[in-house]
Amino acid sequence: MKVKRYDVVVIGGGIGGYYSARALKREGKAVAIIEKNSFGGTALRWGALPVKKVLDSFKGIKKHDHTEIKKTREYLIKKWDEDLRRLESKIKDNLLEDKIDIYFGDGEFLDSETFKLREDVIETEYFIIATGSEPASIKDIVIDGTNIITHREAIDLKNMPKSITILGGNVEGIEFAALYAEMGVEVTIIEKENNILFENDVDLVYPIEEHLKSRGVRILKGIGAKNAEVGRTGVKVLLDDGRMISSEKALVTFMRKPNFPRGIENTNIKISENKIIVNENLLTDEKNIFAIGDINGILGMAHVAVQQGLKVADYILKNISVNISYEILPRAVFTLPEMAGVGRQEWELKRDNIPYKLGTYSFKDSWRGWARSIEEGFVKIILDENNKILGIWMVGENVSEYIGLMGYLIKEEKTAEEILSNLVIHPSLTESILEALIESKDKKVIK
Amino acid sequence: MKVKRYDVVVIGGGIGGYYSARALKREGKAVAIIEKNSFGGTALRWGALPVKKVLDSFKGIKKHDHTEIKKTREYLIKKWDEDLRRLESKIKDNLLEDKIDIYFGDGEFLDSETFKLREDVIETEYFIIATGSEPASIKDIVIDGTNIITHREAIDLKNMPKSITILGGNVEGIEFAALYAEMGVEVTIIEKENNILFENDVDLVYPIEEHLKSRGVRILKGIGAKNAEVGRTGVKVLLDDGRMISSEKALVTFMRKPNFPRGIENTNIKISENKIIVNENLLTDEKNIFAIGDINGILGMAHVAVQQGLKVADYILKNISVNISYEILPRAVFTLPEMAGVGRQEWELKRDNIPYKLGTYSFKDSWRGWARSIEEGFVKIILDENNKILGIWMVGENVSEYIGLMGYLIKEEKTAEEILSNLVIHPSLTESILEALIESKDKKVIK
Repeated sequence: MKVKRYDVVVIGGGIGGYYSARALKREGKAVAIIEKNSFGGTALRWGALPVKKVLDSFKGIKKHDHTEIKKTREYLIKKWDEDLRRLESKIKDNLLEDKIDIYFGDGEFLDSETFKLREDVIETEYFIIATGSEPASIKDIVIDGTNIITHREAIDLKNMPKSITILGGNVEGIEFAALYAEMGVEVTIIEKENNILFENDVDLVYPIEEHLKSRGVRILKGIGAKNAEVGRTGVKVLLDDGRMISSEKALVTFMRKPNFPRGIENTNIKISENKIIVNENLLTDEKNIFAIGDINGILGMAHVAVQQGLKVADYILKNISVNISYEILPRAVFTLPEMAGVGRQEWELKRDNIPYKLGTYSFKDSWRGWARSIEEGFVKIILDENNKILGIWMVGENVSEYIGLMGYLIKEEKTAEEILSNLVIHPSLTESILEALIESKDKKVIK
Repeated sequence: MKVKRYDVVVIGGGIGGYYSARALKREGKAVAIIEKNSFGGTALRWGALPVKKVLDSFKGIKKHDHTEIKKTREYLIKKWDEDLRRLESKIKDNLLEDKIDIYFGDGEFLDSETFKLREDVIETEYFIIATGSEPASIKDIVIDGTNIITHREAIDLKNMPKSITILGGNVEGIEFAALYAEMGVEVTIIEKENNILFENDVDLVYPIEEHLKSRGVRILKGIGAKNAEVGRTGVKVLLDDGRMISSEKALVTFMRKPNFPRGIENTNIKISENKIIVNENLLTDEKNIFAIGDINGILGMAHVAVQQGLKVADYILKNISVNISYEILPRAVFTLPEMAGVGRQEWELKRDNIPYKLGTYSFKDSWRGWARSIEEGFVKIILDENNKILGIWMVGENVSEYIGLMGYLIKEEKTAEEILSNLVIHPSLTESILEALIESKDKKVIK
């Protein structure tokens, strides 16, 4: 039995753990990272990033250029193994370069300062739990990894089904629907809410839905799936109204469960059904054990995990409290077109009875829009009665890149007038933000 | 003789005048705009915007995909007249929609409140002079519009020469060099400074220079042009060292002259050799006459003119002083790849003996860089000794869109640590900004 001692041990090699470990190591801490499976986690390996690769590859191809679409599909499939290998070695190389100690395996807590991994006993001053979450079955819809699959299997471009039913029109479901649609698979989406991408303004969702439809995707809204049955020819999904949807595979996206590390009962860490309970500094009930990312149940998004990882590192290094403004968190849906933004949307303001002003501006009406022959996409700005910026939202190709650090403007409670004093490059699509601001500030208040 | 009376009369229908007139009209002012030639000015008509259209069309085409390059050239040329007509009607339609009174012609000031245009006498409370500037000949290099040309002729895709010599490796010269190179024209650039895009960091310029060279562009640096002579077969440019460069045409970019309106002598407006003199509110020595854009000699860039136009409108409407922070002005060079950024660069800090820290991060090393198979481009962050952000610069495809409103962060004197508290979408190329910040803040100070 070997005993190893560290300053910080990170459990889980997903994107949160990765950034946290790296930040601590940079400042001279002795850091180890323990990974059960393979580095990169859900964000980098099992869906999110590879999905973007597929969709990014189809950008710029005209809707009806079937030759180019076919060429791109074939090229992606041909290069897929190599591309994934490149990604894997990129993650590994970065960690090796950081000279962080790496352990593979599925260990357990012995107490709040000790973790056992086969013959190794790992002692440390701090633990950071970053074990994430994974897709979950429900009673009558049981994931089998072959016909009823999760994002892990779904991203395998080499094994595209002829048809697929996607259970859940949420962000993950819609991003995969986009991927399958571009890859020529027959797609049906089942969404129990009245809209896909529920809790997003309908005008922002509309262009995404239209694009999916133009690719032949069938979208069933306001209806749930009762059960899914695997037969000889594929999967049969029974809907609440008795309809039956048949397809080669079904992708389950609507449930996730936490990956609790083993041995939690040997510590004072408290858990609820689906998360580790943390305080405002992301500390568990053990004063030296943090939990970041999906496992703490705050917000299941990759950049939240990254931010929490960096903040916890700062807390350990400099005793700076973890103070994350989740309300200025930018969000994106990586479809074709993309949706991205930060701050409030109309539906929330209506729900909360908050008066607001609205301005929109189409990219095609901007000068650069002419130059780039852009046909779709727009900016939507939401202000309060005093012109304070509440939300900046966009739909269009690559808009996930345009939001950048604009959460800042909302955090600092800037007004339309203050932003208009800032010069935006001419000609750029981001001029549309200024146009929408000009429009919104003179608008009547919507109550 | 008709007498017309307005609240505000804008002289010059370029982009500055356009935005200014529009902002005033929106708030209920009686506004007229007088244009000598055609609306849109240099920015929209005579180079800047159409150049971007050409270069945007070549984006995403692989360097050696000659078939696609040729196809794009032919398509651009075929559609050019129609594209320009669409642009023209876009400008006109916007103005018509605004219901601003439009006058065509070259009039003159009668006094500080009266402008004469043929049979019309136009009286107004305020004038905004936005007449811009135009390329100028020098002693031995005389623009003839046929062989020795300016951007006005240069943008005519239907009449591409076989070869061209570009006099001046400044932003305009380099953007046109990029355009000609993509269009298959043999290009020589003459730049008297030791670098093209002088007064920009060499690491930012390098990828642009390399791309131009890969397209066969010849770049002569540290040497001036003595004279240019038009012969039967084209233009011969004589260099300072006695060398002679022959090409079909020569494009002059190094000199501009102001377009002073006529009748200035009937007012108290003061001019110097190349500008109208204004105070901090962009007011001339007449307390009701403003001058915006190139004509006031502050900074000859389209978005400066726009900003000045909007600010002067605010001054007239609400008596808000014109307070523009030119130091947070973003800048871009629209080549392939593009350069864009805001704040200080290294060469300035070295010149001024200001200590700084530096961090860079390549887009290809970002997760999204992998997804998008991006090979070139990087982010460069410059901090002061206390990690205050001094400069954010980028090179790469479309980076003019990524800078957005980041000038704000510099204006508000934010530190690297404060920005790192802001969530950037994952995966996005803009994550490279965070990576460069993480790198820069721990770097040794460069003195």
